[in-house]
Amino acid sequence: MIFSKKFEPSWTENQPPKGSYRSIFKWGAPERFKHPNARLYNMLKEVFGMTDNDFVKKVKEGNEQVCLPSDKKSLRVLTEEDLKSFISILGKENVETDDFSRVKFSSGKTVEEALELRDGCPVDVSDAVLHPRTKEDVQKVITYCSEHKIPVYVFGGGSSVNLGLRPSRGGITLVMSTHMKRLIELNEENQTATVEAGMMGPDFEKLLNKAPEKLSARRRYTCGHFPQSFEYSSVGGWVAALGSGQSSTYYGDACDLVISQEYVTPAGTFKTVDYPATATGPNINWIMMGSEGCFGVLTSVTMKIFRHMPENRKRFGYIFPDWDKAVSATREISQGEFGLPSVLRISDAEETDVALKLYGVEGTVLDKMMELKGFEKGRRCLCIGHTEGEKGLSSHVKRKLSKIARANGGMTLTGYPTSKWEHGRFNDPYMREDLNDYDIIIDTLETSVKWDNLHHVHKSVREFIKKRPATVCMTHCSHFYPQGTNLYFIFIGRFSSMQEYKNFQTGIIERINASGGSLSHHHGVGKMIGPWMESHLGKEQIDILKALKRHFDPENIMNPGGQMSIT
Amino acid sequence: MIFSKKFEPSWTENQPPKGSYRSIFKWGAPERFKHPNARLYNMLKEVFGMTDNDFVKKVKEGNEQVCLPSDKKSLRVLTEEDLKSFISILGKENVETDDFSRVKFSSGKTVEEALELRDGCPVDVSDAVLHPRTKEDVQKVITYCSEHKIPVYVFGGGSSVNLGLRPSRGGITLVMSTHMKRLIELNEENQTATVEAGMMGPDFEKLLNKAPEKLSARRRYTCGHFPQSFEYSSVGGWVAALGSGQSSTYYGDACDLVISQEYVTPAGTFKTVDYPATATGPNINWIMMGSEGCFGVLTSVTMKIFRHMPENRKRFGYIFPDWDKAVSATREISQGEFGLPSVLRISDAEETDVALKLYGVEGTVLDKMMELKGFEKGRRCLCIGHTEGEKGLSSHVKRKLSKIARANGGMTLTGYPTSKWEHGRFNDPYMREDLNDYDIIIDTLETSVKWDNLHHVHKSVREFIKKRPATVCMTHCSHFYPQGTNLYFIFIGRFSSMQEYKNFQTGIIERINASGGSLSHHHGVGKMIGPWMESHLGKEQIDILKALKRHFDPENIMNPGGQMSIT
Repeated sequence: MIFSKKFEPSWTENQPPKGSYRSIFKWGAPERFKHPNARLYNMLKEVFGMTDNDFVKKVKEGNEQVCLPSDKKSLRVLTEEDLKSFISILGKENVETDDFSRVKFSSGKTVEEALELRDGCPVDVSDAVLHPRTKEDVQKVITYCSEHKIPVYVFGGGSSVNLGLRPSRGGITLVMSTHMKRLIELNEENQTATVEAGMMGPDFEKLLNKAPEKLSARRRYTCGHFPQSFEYSSVGGWVAALGSGQSSTYYGDACDLVISQEYVTPAGTFKTVDYPATATGPNINWIMMGSEGCFGVLTSVTMKIFRHMPENRKRFGYIFPDWDKAVSATREISQGEFGLPSVLRISDAEETDVALKLYGVEGTVLDKMMELKGFEKGRRCLCIGHTEGEKGLSSHVKRKLSKIARANGGMTLTGYPTSKWEHGRFNDPYMREDLNDYDIIIDTLETSVKWDNLHHVHKSVREFIKKRPATVCMTHCSHFYPQGTNLYFIFIGRFSSMQEYKNFQTGIIERINASGGSLSHHHGVGKMIGPWMESHLGKEQIDILKALKRHFDPENIMNPGGQMSIT
Repeated sequence: MIFSKKFEPSWTENQPPKGSYRSIFKWGAPERFKHPNARLYNMLKEVFGMTDNDFVKKVKEGNEQVCLPSDKKSLRVLTEEDLKSFISILGKENVETDDFSRVKFSSGKTVEEALELRDGCPVDVSDAVLHPRTKEDVQKVITYCSEHKIPVYVFGGGSSVNLGLRPSRGGITLVMSTHMKRLIELNEENQTATVEAGMMGPDFEKLLNKAPEKLSARRRYTCGHFPQSFEYSSVGGWVAALGSGQSSTYYGDACDLVISQEYVTPAGTFKTVDYPATATGPNINWIMMGSEGCFGVLTSVTMKIFRHMPENRKRFGYIFPDWDKAVSATREISQGEFGLPSVLRISDAEETDVALKLYGVEGTVLDKMMELKGFEKGRRCLCIGHTEGEKGLSSHVKRKLSKIARANGGMTLTGYPTSKWEHGRFNDPYMREDLNDYDIIIDTLETSVKWDNLHHVHKSVREFIKKRPATVCMTHCSHFYPQGTNLYFIFIGRFSSMQEYKNFQTGIIERINASGGSLSHHHGVGKMIGPWMESHLGKEQIDILKALKRHFDPENIMNPGGQMSIT
């Protein structure tokens, strides 16, 4: 590896122009950036056979103002009459038909969408963007759309990475996060919070953390759900797409946190019962979770909350000699019944290499120690995490898992890499624009696996990805259960065309499916995964989902066009 | 209270005659009994104003041979042709049409059924009892029944207490526990066991406990699910009716233990995916659980299993000054995030009084201590339980919960009452026959509540029950969650007629529903609770269940006649 210390690419540091395509596809806050550090930059050059010269001129940056071509500009489904009706329901200020709004709220955060927007070519746009203020607004809109057979797409935080938001049949997009982001109730006795579906992660967490100051509560709380998209995802989105947070090993996945949901569907409005458990037949809460806007609009949710005790957090970091040992250790941790850590992550050898660069471990004394102790680059695997909960439990879990790590050949790296990871835990997606600026694609796909199939899925998918020349494939497990874990694949490559990239992506999904992984651990289905759902679940089970779809939405107006293959 | 030490009723100690009604309604093993002890007997006399004389002559004991009256004897739905077809599918030995089998497998364990059987008047019986040997048998039977519109009822262990098994439209009853009780796979790496649905609780647990000897496994395991009906319930029944075990606070309810299920339905056969978590749309596993045979026949399940570490169990027992304090302590235990106990139970004042008699604490040195320390009879509330899991966790949980108990005014009773409870934990139902023999009815209804509604539901239901003269009402909470718990009401009374009793039962269910409790925490729905489902969930949500029912079972042959109000 050649260190070229003199040159650093001029990573974009300017906020994207207001009204531009880039302001839509850029991740996160307009003014925030995270660039590849020098070590990572050098790695990219090496892997892709690029030189500093290749990092001088950026590809199309998407700084142009959004301006729809005439074939997309015209209304696809709506009539002027419909628009008037929506205005009469919601007020003029809550019905947008300008090009920018139409594109912005029709887009999620997939690579495809980002690249299409760079090119000024969004594939599908809604005819109008509606910002409901209340559940009653949503009811009126859904009633109107049912009567007039107008497709309805729902936008929460906009962080979907599977074309979940794509309005492939035009119609309207309902934006939940504009107005419908209020706290409805904090219930300290039950340890629950009821919020409108559009409340964004950080607002929710801040309310809970500062409950004594903001809500005169007796205690501070936490929501326990911190996906990488935390800052730009909504509580409703977590539930509708079956998300999972980085602390799920302790707090549970989104589905484990839901006590009750309220939906507006073409077949009526209802709120599910909010008991901690109930044996009154198939639980409607369970039937609705993960329906991704295909059954109706999630308007509010009651979530479990937890006591906020960050002072009890204990960080740990280990390096294992190899992937097998890292997996064995985390399996034992997951099955040992001594309590579970909150964050737990293991990286395979290729990701470990990159992670040590990213977390600033490469070149430090820790790095030296690893080498001295024989933890070989290209084989060694990083494990980071922290424990939470009551003080004694948190300490106990750390003590026990340390023992297991050592028994599996692990060496402590102290809590340092975890601190570094925590610092940037929500920021890695910012690097995508930098890479895209120089024609490098970074993307992810993920799956869940049982322990006895983990190695097979990992090998099989990696084999497919690595068969392609000059392609990085980093894998980690970050959500642990006694019965298995997830595999999260991050791949980086250069592609000659969108079609070449799509073919590659298709190949990975097919490998996941064929090797026996789930089609998604926590990204959801969307229109990207939809086409594989029937082969994954089988006809009998897809037919169950279709029966529900027909019940809720006989006119097929809710998120039509591919989601869950229900058309 | 007058202690009459001389007289003891001649509680039935004989096995019921083979072929008799009593052999059907008697709880549990024919040769096992548990009788009210002297203290309980005296209490009964006192409460009901009875004397020893009232315990000399038993009411109708149901010792007669089962012999159906002619109007029930004749086939209601099946033709001779149908019977021939079933015999050709299953073999002659697996198709029974004798009176005894028809009555036995048409009966669950409700009070109504027990009393009807005592009188020799079963309300509904199937035309034939079928014992499928394999999934393929079940498929053939369901295909045949679909074609010929023959109602199908499913019998697992037969412990339903809500008329769940009642074949109210005749047809056939499929008995799963005769042949379909095999282990399919023990997977130690994933910590799962796949079994046919008819495997009974003790067989399952024994296989897991003795896995090294019986299956050459590396470890011993436990299923973690121990309902009071454990010995006479099937694994499939736990899942189909959303059961909960006495250790659920630690291990979870049945629904939390299910990884995958296989169903034979009129709409096809399928096995749900068996990932520890998946985000592929509404989870079919969740849709099927709790369907109580209304969608199809559950043929096998993959369950989470746990390491068997009984040596780490730590027992505890506390007496609290009153119900408020007992509830506050258990809420803090449930929300404290220091780990959860396995068994946790609190009894209200009336149940505490009875429990201290039953567990043999009354009259001991512990009893004296309670009195000395001012724990007043009629106010004091008992708390028992034990912790499990890895040794250090188990100790930590006990230490922390002890602190909380003391902070809430609790005094330790040592693990003694828990040991006594453990000893008889599955045996209390045996006492029902003794009480029924002397015309006393004992029955239960249960609900789940959020913490902030616990006291209201408890008061409201108790008020209704206690309004009736000479009626015992004992209540406990035995399944804890951070968001709430359950309330389990046990009532004892004398009734002039079945109708009077039914009216009383109806009144309790209506009080539970009106006061905001769930219609069931873990007994399921059955034909007893079915009529209240729509008022409980609302029309929109019942319509969802009906849509699923129509999909799976368009001819309405699966458990028709009231379950979930789907008719």
